[in-house]
Amino acid sequence: MAKEVTNRAENYSQWYNDLALKADLAEQSAVRGCMVIKPYGYAIWEKMQGILDGMFKQTGVQNAYFPLFIPKSFFSREAEHVAGFAKECAVVTHHRLMNDPNGGGVVVDPDAKLEEELIVRPTSETIIWNTYKNWITSWRDLPVLCNQWCNVVRWEMRTRLFLRTAEFLWQEGHTAHATAEEAQAKAEEMVQVYARFAREVMALPVIVGHKSPNERFAGALDTLTIEAMMQDGKALQAGTSHFLGQNFAKSFDVQFANKDGKQEYVWATSWGVSTRLMGALIMAHGDDNGLVLPPKLAPIQVVMVPIFRTEEEMNAVLDKMHAIKKELEAMGHSVRIDERDTLRPGFKFAEWELKGVPVRLAMGARDLAAGTVEVARRDTLTKETMSLDGIAAHIDGLLEDIQQNIYDKAEAFRDGNIEKCDSWEEFKEKIKTGKFLLCHWDGTTETEQAIKDETKATIRCIPVDTCVCKEEGKCIYSGKPSGQRVVFAISY
Amino acid sequence: MAKEVTNRAENYSQWYNDLALKADLAEQSAVRGCMVIKPYGYAIWEKMQGILDGMFKQTGVQNAYFPLFIPKSFFSREAEHVAGFAKECAVVTHHRLMNDPNGGGVVVDPDAKLEEELIVRPTSETIIWNTYKNWITSWRDLPVLCNQWCNVVRWEMRTRLFLRTAEFLWQEGHTAHATAEEAQAKAEEMVQVYARFAREVMALPVIVGHKSPNERFAGALDTLTIEAMMQDGKALQAGTSHFLGQNFAKSFDVQFANKDGKQEYVWATSWGVSTRLMGALIMAHGDDNGLVLPPKLAPIQVVMVPIFRTEEEMNAVLDKMHAIKKELEAMGHSVRIDERDTLRPGFKFAEWELKGVPVRLAMGARDLAAGTVEVARRDTLTKETMSLDGIAAHIDGLLEDIQQNIYDKAEAFRDGNIEKCDSWEEFKEKIKTGKFLLCHWDGTTETEQAIKDETKATIRCIPVDTCVCKEEGKCIYSGKPSGQRVVFAISY
Repeated sequence: MAKEVTNRAENYSQWYNDLALKADLAEQSAVRGCMVIKPYGYAIWEKMQGILDGMFKQTGVQNAYFPLFIPKSFFSREAEHVAGFAKECAVVTHHRLMNDPNGGGVVVDPDAKLEEELIVRPTSETIIWNTYKNWITSWRDLPVLCNQWCNVVRWEMRTRLFLRTAEFLWQEGHTAHATAEEAQAKAEEMVQVYARFAREVMALPVIVGHKSPNERFAGALDTLTIEAMMQDGKALQAGTSHFLGQNFAKSFDVQFANKDGKQEYVWATSWGVSTRLMGALIMAHGDDNGLVLPPKLAPIQVVMVPIFRTEEEMNAVLDKMHAIKKELEAMGHSVRIDERDTLRPGFKFAEWELKGVPVRLAMGARDLAAGTVEVARRDTLTKETMSLDGIAAHIDGLLEDIQQNIYDKAEAFRDGNIEKCDSWEEFKEKIKTGKFLLCHWDGTTETEQAIKDETKATIRCIPVDTCVCKEEGKCIYSGKPSGQRVVFAISY
Repeated sequence: MAKEVTNRAENYSQWYNDLALKADLAEQSAVRGCMVIKPYGYAIWEKMQGILDGMFKQTGVQNAYFPLFIPKSFFSREAEHVAGFAKECAVVTHHRLMNDPNGGGVVVDPDAKLEEELIVRPTSETIIWNTYKNWITSWRDLPVLCNQWCNVVRWEMRTRLFLRTAEFLWQEGHTAHATAEEAQAKAEEMVQVYARFAREVMALPVIVGHKSPNERFAGALDTLTIEAMMQDGKALQAGTSHFLGQNFAKSFDVQFANKDGKQEYVWATSWGVSTRLMGALIMAHGDDNGLVLPPKLAPIQVVMVPIFRTEEEMNAVLDKMHAIKKELEAMGHSVRIDERDTLRPGFKFAEWELKGVPVRLAMGARDLAAGTVEVARRDTLTKETMSLDGIAAHIDGLLEDIQQNIYDKAEAFRDGNIEKCDSWEEFKEKIKTGKFLLCHWDGTTETEQAIKDETKATIRCIPVDTCVCKEEGKCIYSGKPSGQRVVFAISY
């Protein structure tokens, strides 16, 4: 094999990095904490974007674009928001470079200092609500349902490709409503859009729930989340949707005349997913041979590797492959024939395995004569010799099977690593082994903090759709009464 | 009419601003020079993106993503590039804010100064070629054909919505090749992609040509451009494609082993179009009633306005409209039924005219009884009463006619305002009246500069595909011999 991948069991973190790098998804750039997303990685992100964007639009959301820069003073307006966000960020202070008068290359022109510093957006609530002020005067202007796809910057000290980078790509939806109920419903609708996307497209069996007050977004009254279990049993927060109440409307004075002609502050939501989803995809499904991509997100769904000794054999095999490719493309599948003539088939097999291509076909002259082809599945690493009759229809079905199988496998893994726990001693042991623990909690931040301090575990969410959690009990830490179990785990 | 638009004849510049603002395309933000692209404007940009992206991919280009920030030192590496680009830009000097110890809100933390300042990308040649160094070692790695869709920042002092903004959205393609010929051919291929997009999608009859050395991109050996004529006779540079030679490869030491095993520097191109295309679209086709959108870029291609006095009439008309909408959508058209019940039909007509919707249907109870509908074309402002039989098929054809008619109109306008000119006195008169003048030029920067100083006119391009220009003559300014005419105009 050309590129060795570290075993998960040996070094999970190194395995993750190997996959991101060696499958050509991304790499570190010359700028600290900023990554380059390579074409193969970006093609997966584009698929995510396309599908999510369609789902957003079906809910009535429209795309727009707001400025990259936010005046520093905007961050002072929403008190909680500044505490949560404005600290580690990129600050623009000057607007010109000049040639060093001493010949030392290019330097910042000290005369070009900005009157007010600009912050590179870490998230856009402030600039967007400042804009909405001009858009909203009456109940007739509501709701406003905007989303933007853009880059944001948070000056993270410890970065990891996709999971935590100084600059990342994301979408941020920002909606404005006439009532609290409508805004809360929109926040819930959008987290369910994320959950459906995670389950049906990414094959991720996520848990949907509310964040505890402690883990809420800065400025939110409620934060909803989708939480995914990675193969090391850790939780990854994969998307969040916030009910922001009237906090931003009050900070930026966004009022509307209601049907009775009275002025009221507008109600808000915001919701986002980012290139972090790429990290979730890698870690949830990958194996020791490389990436395992769900067919719905695979840039190449079927790869074909010809095997031949003579040019005549090559031509015959390639002819047949092109015919199958045409059929598959007509069904909407993306297919690549690997015609590179400087590489051995075994090398190609390993490379496409590393890149997670769901289905691989190999065919030589003998297969062609026998009317057969070798079909390999990436998810199970199994091979089968099949008749060429009806091969396209077979692969069409196989891709659906693989999508489902990847989900089922992830779900079985999750279900095997999530359990109820009612003993504090047991909790401390089990949480270390990579489990999601369903526990009673007394609802206080103090208890949550104490548990975190002792075990590093946090409340990932208070589930909304897991009926096993809806039962009375006693807090695992304080023993006080609790009305429902919550999900504890160690998280990324 | 709800929103008045300034007449073009009265104040062309104000007319442009009115269209951008009142048709809900964009507005200024709280950040100097940065615009907000509103949902209706962004929907047009999304259509442009989608179609261009497909055209790029057909040429083998893949998308990727490179960092927003560029280390300051990178700009010193390519001497011409720093002269042309690195001056007016946004400079990040710090990475943290803090609460003002004196209680004055949020301030920049002086301890969080970056060791090396970061520049918000004005264009990405430097960071991309620094990345390509790791991707390219052998001829087998070539060509590299990447594009990115992203935001860039150039600290413009005088800004106008879409035409010149501090932040704008664009795509930038960056390709790497083994030979000069291949790179030059790629630069030419991409300018022709832009020309085809401009003509077939934007209905803009652009002129394709080379820039004079003086107007080349900083660091390029050749710059190709598409130039469009606006309704005031000024030229708008709508897209450029550069052959960069080995300049960036040398600055960032990107070499490859050729087939003979010898090390060579890589050959480069870059090419881009931006949200400036939105400005071209507004100015090329708009009229005194508002936007005129070519059907291929219209977010709403057909709008239907019901006319009724009773609820019964309304229901009957809307039923029929929904049936037509379904038919049109099945043909791939986007349709909106304007069911708003607080607005008069006349108000709606004016609003959709302002927004440039290509086709408007109006129908009342009497039309329904007669089996007819009123069909209004935005491009010609004509109305026709038509039979409902086969109406969807008729509109399908009408949209094609409108696309062609908008192009034809723009082409006739351009052809009526472009002429050969061989007298310097005539040149000085005519250039003021908004003409493109085809003139002989002696090929020197001095002459070009002298003409610009006296008339503000610049060489827009040395056309590649206009045979009328291929003739011998004498320079209009110096009288020296010239082998071909070039296009002079005053530009945006």
